[in-house]
Amino acid sequence: MSIEDAVISLRKQPFEDLGFAKVDTHRRLRQGVSEVIYGAGKTAEQIIGIMDTMIRDGQDTVLVTRIDKDKAEAISKAHVFTYNEAGRIGIVGSMPEPDGLGEILIATGGTSDIPVAEEAAVTAEALGNRVSRIYDVGVAGIHRLFDHIDEIMSASVIIAIAGMEGALASVIGGLADCPVIAVPTSVGYGAAFEGLSALLSMLNSCASGVTVVNIDNGFGAGYMASMINHMKER
Amino acid sequence: MSIEDAVISLRKQPFEDLGFAKVDTHRRLRQGVSEVIYGAGKTAEQIIGIMDTMIRDGQDTVLVTRIDKDKAEAISKAHVFTYNEAGRIGIVGSMPEPDGLGEILIATGGTSDIPVAEEAAVTAEALGNRVSRIYDVGVAGIHRLFDHIDEIMSASVIIAIAGMEGALASVIGGLADCPVIAVPTSVGYGAAFEGLSALLSMLNSCASGVTVVNIDNGFGAGYMASMINHMKER
Amino acid sequence: MSIEDAVISLRKQPFEDLGFAKVDTHRRLRQGVSEVIYGAGKTAEQIIGIMDTMIRDGQDTVLVTRIDKDKAEAISKAHVFTYNEAGRIGIVGSMPEPDGLGEILIATGGTSDIPVAEEAAVTAEALGNRVSRIYDVGVAGIHRLFDHIDEIMSASVIIAIAGMEGALASVIGGLADCPVIAVPTSVGYGAAFEGLSALLSMLNSCASGVTVVNIDNGFGAGYMASMINHMKER
Amino acid sequence: MSIEDAVISLRKQPFEDLGFAKVDTHRRLRQGVSEVIYGAGKTAEQIIGIMDTMIRDGQDTVLVTRIDKDKAEAISKAHVFTYNEAGRIGIVGSMPEPDGLGEILIATGGTSDIPVAEEAAVTAEALGNRVSRIYDVGVAGIHRLFDHIDEIMSASVIIAIAGMEGALASVIGGLADCPVIAVPTSVGYGAAFEGLSALLSMLNSCASGVTVVNIDNGFGAGYMASMINHMKER
Amino acid sequence: MSIEDAVISLRKQPFEDLGFAKVDTHRRLRQGVSEVIYGAGKTAEQIIGIMDTMIRDGQDTVLVTRIDKDKAEAISKAHVFTYNEAGRIGIVGSMPEPDGLGEILIATGGTSDIPVAEEAAVTAEALGNRVSRIYDVGVAGIHRLFDHIDEIMSASVIIAIAGMEGALASVIGGLADCPVIAVPTSVGYGAAFEGLSALLSMLNSCASGVTVVNIDNGFGAGYMASMINHMKER
Amino acid sequence: MSIEDAVISLRKQPFEDLGFAKVDTHRRLRQGVSEVIYGAGKTAEQIIGIMDTMIRDGQDTVLVTRIDKDKAEAISKAHVFTYNEAGRIGIVGSMPEPDGLGEILIATGGTSDIPVAEEAAVTAEALGNRVSRIYDVGVAGIHRLFDHIDEIMSASVIIAIAGMEGALASVIGGLADCPVIAVPTSVGYGAAFEGLSALLSMLNSCASGVTVVNIDNGFGAGYMASMINHMKER
Amino acid sequence: MSIEDAVISLRKQPFEDLGFAKVDTHRRLRQGVSEVIYGAGKTAEQIIGIMDTMIRDGQDTVLVTRIDKDKAEAISKAHVFTYNEAGRIGIVGSMPEPDGLGEILIATGGTSDIPVAEEAAVTAEALGNRVSRIYDVGVAGIHRLFDHIDEIMSASVIIAIAGMEGALASVIGGLADCPVIAVPTSVGYGAAFEGLSALLSMLNSCASGVTVVNIDNGFGAGYMASMINHMKER
Amino acid sequence: MSIEDAVISLRKQPFEDLGFAKVDTHRRLRQGVSEVIYGAGKTAEQIIGIMDTMIRDGQDTVLVTRIDKDKAEAISKAHVFTYNEAGRIGIVGSMPEPDGLGEILIATGGTSDIPVAEEAAVTAEALGNRVSRIYDVGVAGIHRLFDHIDEIMSASVIIAIAGMEGALASVIGGLADCPVIAVPTSVGYGAAFEGLSALLSMLNSCASGVTVVNIDNGFGAGYMASMINHMKER
Repeated sequence: MSIEDAVISLRKQPFEDLGFAKVDTHRRLRQGVSEVIYGAGKTAEQIIGIMDTMIRDGQDTVLVTRIDKDKAEAISKAHVFTYNEAGRIGIVGSMPEPDGLGEILIATGGTSDIPVAEEAAVTAEALGNRVSRIYDVGVAGIHRLFDHIDEIMSASVIIAIAGMEGALASVIGGLADCPVIAVPTSVGYGAAFEGLSALLSMLNSCASGVTVVNIDNGFGAGYMASMINHMKER
Repeated sequence: MSIEDAVISLRKQPFEDLGFAKVDTHRRLRQGVSEVIYGAGKTAEQIIGIMDTMIRDGQDTVLVTRIDKDKAEAISKAHVFTYNEAGRIGIVGSMPEPDGLGEILIATGGTSDIPVAEEAAVTAEALGNRVSRIYDVGVAGIHRLFDHIDEIMSASVIIAIAGMEGALASVIGGLADCPVIAVPTSVGYGAAFEGLSALLSMLNSCASGVTVVNIDNGFGAGYMASMINHMKER
Repeated sequence: MSIEDAVISLRKQPFEDLGFAKVDTHRRLRQGVSEVIYGAGKTAEQIIGIMDTMIRDGQDTVLVTRIDKDKAEAISKAHVFTYNEAGRIGIVGSMPEPDGLGEILIATGGTSDIPVAEEAAVTAEALGNRVSRIYDVGVAGIHRLFDHIDEIMSASVIIAIAGMEGALASVIGGLADCPVIAVPTSVGYGAAFEGLSALLSMLNSCASGVTVVNIDNGFGAGYMASMINHMKER
Repeated sequence: MSIEDAVISLRKQPFEDLGFAKVDTHRRLRQGVSEVIYGAGKTAEQIIGIMDTMIRDGQDTVLVTRIDKDKAEAISKAHVFTYNEAGRIGIVGSMPEPDGLGEILIATGGTSDIPVAEEAAVTAEALGNRVSRIYDVGVAGIHRLFDHIDEIMSASVIIAIAGMEGALASVIGGLADCPVIAVPTSVGYGAAFEGLSALLSMLNSCASGVTVVNIDNGFGAGYMASMINHMKER
Repeated sequence: MSIEDAVISLRKQPFEDLGFAKVDTHRRLRQGVSEVIYGAGKTAEQIIGIMDTMIRDGQDTVLVTRIDKDKAEAISKAHVFTYNEAGRIGIVGSMPEPDGLGEILIATGGTSDIPVAEEAAVTAEALGNRVSRIYDVGVAGIHRLFDHIDEIMSASVIIAIAGMEGALASVIGGLADCPVIAVPTSVGYGAAFEGLSALLSMLNSCASGVTVVNIDNGFGAGYMASMINHMKER
Repeated sequence: MSIEDAVISLRKQPFEDLGFAKVDTHRRLRQGVSEVIYGAGKTAEQIIGIMDTMIRDGQDTVLVTRIDKDKAEAISKAHVFTYNEAGRIGIVGSMPEPDGLGEILIATGGTSDIPVAEEAAVTAEALGNRVSRIYDVGVAGIHRLFDHIDEIMSASVIIAIAGMEGALASVIGGLADCPVIAVPTSVGYGAAFEGLSALLSMLNSCASGVTVVNIDNGFGAGYMASMINHMKER
Repeated sequence: MSIEDAVISLRKQPFEDLGFAKVDTHRRLRQGVSEVIYGAGKTAEQIIGIMDTMIRDGQDTVLVTRIDKDKAEAISKAHVFTYNEAGRIGIVGSMPEPDGLGEILIATGGTSDIPVAEEAAVTAEALGNRVSRIYDVGVAGIHRLFDHIDEIMSASVIIAIAGMEGALASVIGGLADCPVIAVPTSVGYGAAFEGLSALLSMLNSCASGVTVVNIDNGFGAGYMASMINHMKER
Repeated sequence: MSIEDAVISLRKQPFEDLGFAKVDTHRRLRQGVSEVIYGAGKTAEQIIGIMDTMIRDGQDTVLVTRIDKDKAEAISKAHVFTYNEAGRIGIVGSMPEPDGLGEILIATGGTSDIPVAEEAAVTAEALGNRVSRIYDVGVAGIHRLFDHIDEIMSASVIIAIAGMEGALASVIGGLADCPVIAVPTSVGYGAAFEGLSALLSMLNSCASGVTVVNIDNGFGAGYMASMINHMKER
């Protein structure tokens, strides 16, 4: 492919201008499956407007992240909308059949990390992945984690979510032999410094095969996990 | 697998005690292919001692990271050792045949990022991957990056390495549709704060499908890229 | 001009004392065109008081920044006031005719950066500049930016506004051959650290011809851009 | 100009690959006048190699920044090279005639800021600007600054360079009515935190018309000042 | 005085225990003149309780800092209470006659610094000092400061209060030949980082004779200024 | 005991003034057992001088921390001195018999943490404790830690030492039912930020019964562990 | 005990899954005495649910931390619940008889530190310790601290709680000869940076025998103090 | 004095331009007594050159700070120079007779703080003050400080110098009733963060009458203490 061709093809990618946002139909999540709207700072009306454009564009499934219950209810009046309150995330259209290489395992250190975990889980499901959840398995009670050792050993990709000292990623990274995506959360107080402690911890993980996303970024982790779980020969 | 079985199998994993280090033969990089020694803070003698143990243990290939030229020369007297001076990394034994899903593309923002890139590249090669390098393609001269757009579009995994403002990861993340691993480097001065600027930048990437490793951690990126490039059905 | 003369002339500059603020009529934005009031932390009454003084002093146009809708409405009752709600900025008097060297182009990474952009845009317009806006052209979808390449190439000054990883400034800086003023915004979450990530990114830009103002400082960018766009032989 | 044309023209821009660096002949500083090499981390041989390529490419003047005396001497053997030891900067070829709108004034807070100032000054001179220097005029002895008030009042662009508390930029910004580029330096100790104190100070300047570059970035300030001093109608 | 005597005298100092606080009558501000209550986090009832104890203990004047209007009104019902709303500070009893060496001059960079300045001013007045105020004399309009040069030159102690870049302390420190106490304030936004920028600036002041107190600590500055203004032969 | 008595007894505590240091014989480590000299920044001559004073004062054992091999050799010529090179710590006099409640277990994440561990271990031994060491048991290979589970379960006090992500303290804290003292180390690179990552991690440990000392403070941990291991009825 | 046995015993530890949380009955605070629920972020219903499980499991006493008055009242309707409003902590069941080695002394620098102190105190009491409180004994009025010197000298363990400059821990650490647990608090303003100042201070304490817990972590200090106060021969 | 007069008088103040530095003869330390040269970053030749200018200008005493032994020896060849090696400070000319209000007391926490203390002491002496030193009186052995309580009680001004946790300033501030100038030092390791811990501690001192200078700034403290010790009626 020549650079001219590449640019021509880039240019052909239609993005509609709704006034308040360019609806980007280029980087669709997986062709024919799902498109995403980052809901934070958008009104329900704006979200519905973007949805309408996407659906008109032939999109079967539309994912909306970071929306509260009120907006979800407003959207529900315009579209068939499945909302996950814990994860503040919802989906228009039907969940696709899982077609990945294996199962994505999502683990959290505590119960307060569940909102981030659910954002990751619903994202991964909306992108065609089978997801398994093990919550509240922080390293301070490591027997709770070990009770799930067979799931850890057999997962295709693992998303390790923790606040405070973020040690969960290192312990899981040391046990598993699949890619681990670490998500620091802003859970904690004092020297947790809004997730900084967990973030630094995870970046310094002595386990190989661990990479990190932004604090509380469940969507990013779910998206990356899905990409990895759908790898194929090129 | 029951938890008892798991622990029993964990326990069976032999690790020899050399006095100064436990040689961990548990998390071998990929069975029969390669094992790694983190060379920083170890003497040439200690490295050779660990190598001997690993080779006796049946290891074909041993990778050594973060070693300077002097240590590399000392090791060369004990073993057939292929040393990459730019990446301060070397390998005992023969490079394995690439057997991954596709090609790993390694891109750097500038020439000063090359040591980190070579660490990533040799790591990935030692783990059985075909690697392609595009160096000095920072976003301030974006035509240099666009000249490689077909390699970006066809890669299996991309490692984006940059210091200073670390924008390369976001631009590549927006162009590619494969997983991108971002490596911030300590290249820069003043407000680069030893890699902090690039690290924060990459964590905040507005592109999906980008995850981050520690500053200057070329090995970690190469290892993760190889894991992803060897994904298979589970 | 001798130093005595300078000081004498400094001293002659009248500033009226309203009790709560010294109305500084020295550094008027451009002679006969516009004067500015920083509205944050001032009551509508105080703002109107300062306005009255300025207008009595012969000022045609008065710009007010950082005021919310309520204060704007209160001011509207006292003066003919054109208010830009998105940019929380307004103007008393008529917009001057553009008389700069060329066009000031204002670009944002996302839709959440628009308030800062509008503050910059209205500031520049009130100072006699033609302004063009391209919003939501972040680097993760670089084709959106490239669609505006002719505007980038022909601008007189560019203001690049972005939060999160702030990469927009570097990419534009690499494409354009005019001065670029980078404005980091507090848009983002987690490791964006209230704009710190974008700020560091922009300070470390590997592109030449990029300078930086404070986080969210749309006014400062618009003011500087106008200064540059009105350069003349001395 | 269509986007295809833009990209085609981008692509035509030749950049030679020297193995260790892509010589980027795209963003030449000002057509026919000067090209720049960032010398830090490059050997004298590499610098000479890049110079040769540039000169072969028709470049009259080549600027080299961040090089120590030893490298300068090595370069002097290959080319006619004018070296400024204080600014660790040198030039191959003759200085161009100044052709800007006016004079660029460079002011420093103390004597320790002179290396950064000389880097800025030589950069601006090599880009065709008349430069005036006023050094050691920090605000703690403000009469020293006032002794130069006529130069401040008549400058076309001012570069204000200071470490420690960086107050010089605000004071000059308040006196001058031309664009001011502030350069924080790493001069100071203790709570100066390697230039962080001056950087924050300058970003928070209460004077309008002040923008900031990276700590110790004399080149960036000189480059931007030249751009502004060469503004013309578009 | 022997150490036993010292401790005995320490011990004799009566402090009454009110249950919620030890009323410390040891470090009385100036014998017979004034005592202080830090009002933040105390209820009006608690403040009145402490006041009663102090007055019973023979205290003529009691200063209360950091109290809002509501608490001030509650206190007014129990005692004759002079409240300064801007400075959130009030006094029971009559203001003492000024008996210091000279005048304490209090200067602020902007109008938003006035609450901190008033806290300092009332504190100094309650401790027996003549106080002069010059507000909104920030360095960006240095002629406003110069209009007060005779007050600066003749002051006994100066308190320089500023947020943002905090340059006021250095400029005043360079002009005056008396002790200058610098108070950084949390005024500003973005890279002001809640007063950090001004704090670092002031600590790095290149002017001699400048010391610094905590961010927004008007009381501390007023107290120290009074101590200095009451120095006498020992 | 009255306060006068306390102060009198405080005063009686003799401390000799050697000119360069007050030899503090008050807080002797355990009566008749051991006294400590912090060697950093002291010459061998100064250390020997302090030792002489202590021994003259009746001290049987003197511990010296943070001394390199050269100083140790110089001391060896003046006193019978047992030096531990790894821990940069030495002792004059004979090691006391262990008389604590149980065994102090010292665990490290990696081999680079050994210097800090040895400082802790020799400190504890010099204070009359039985010490057991398990090194290189980081959580990324958790089977290595589990191989020592019986020692963890039976220890009296545990010192957990780790750099990088510092997760060891949490995992051990969750397994053990004795006090755990966590020591972050400066081991690591990049986002380890000289021990900050491990420090924050340990402060945020979700395990109960974990407290933290300063980065690399092996002595402090050993001292506290000994105090705890010698608790008795009061 | 073999590792298999250990893991088997780990596994046997029942933890009930309530859906929203795993009730961990493994690390019970002291066998038969008390179990703890971290109340922050849990509803009264969830807390009651966990309580019910614990009590069914044979637990006599259940401690709940970080709950406000409203939740406490809701719990009071389901269980006999003793609530300490200052410490936002409560207990179901009867306080155990103190059975530790001695008394735990809890000292605070100011009155604002009392909530943290009460959390520590009730935790220690619920774990079977005699507790003594000395509040508002900050070092700025050191005679207030000295008035309690006999309690300091005779305590079994001391918890030193302070915000702002956190000096209390060092002074007490220098006086006492028992273990001191330092708790930094978020009390203060400006450069206190939400407890960072006190935290750093305490970590750098020049007194031996001082260890630190997270900012505002009264529970952690009380728990550790109890562990130390119950040490016995192993 | 009118502003014109002030500026005229400012202008008359001669400052000689030596090429590398403006010798500022305006802010002489105390008329006819002493002038200061900041030696860091200046060669012995430059220092001698400035000295010559000052002496020619009628200066009796010249103080030079931050110079090492080698430079001191070079200066000794040109002038009669009294050098204090510990404080890296020296003086040309004779020490003036003390003529202040009382004695300046300089206290340090440890022996490593002595260089900063000597810089402060010699500065104060050169400015005409009687100075008393009490070194190594850190709060961890508070009886050492109490042994000097009469000097603390009778001092005119106190300079409290400490690294690590910096608690000395608060304790002295609580005992003394004279102004206290706190100097944080870079003494310490780990979480001392090059003096940041002590700096924050001192800024947050709960004692009134304490102000702070930059880390390691002995000169600044000595200068301010002298100013205070020479206060007189205005």
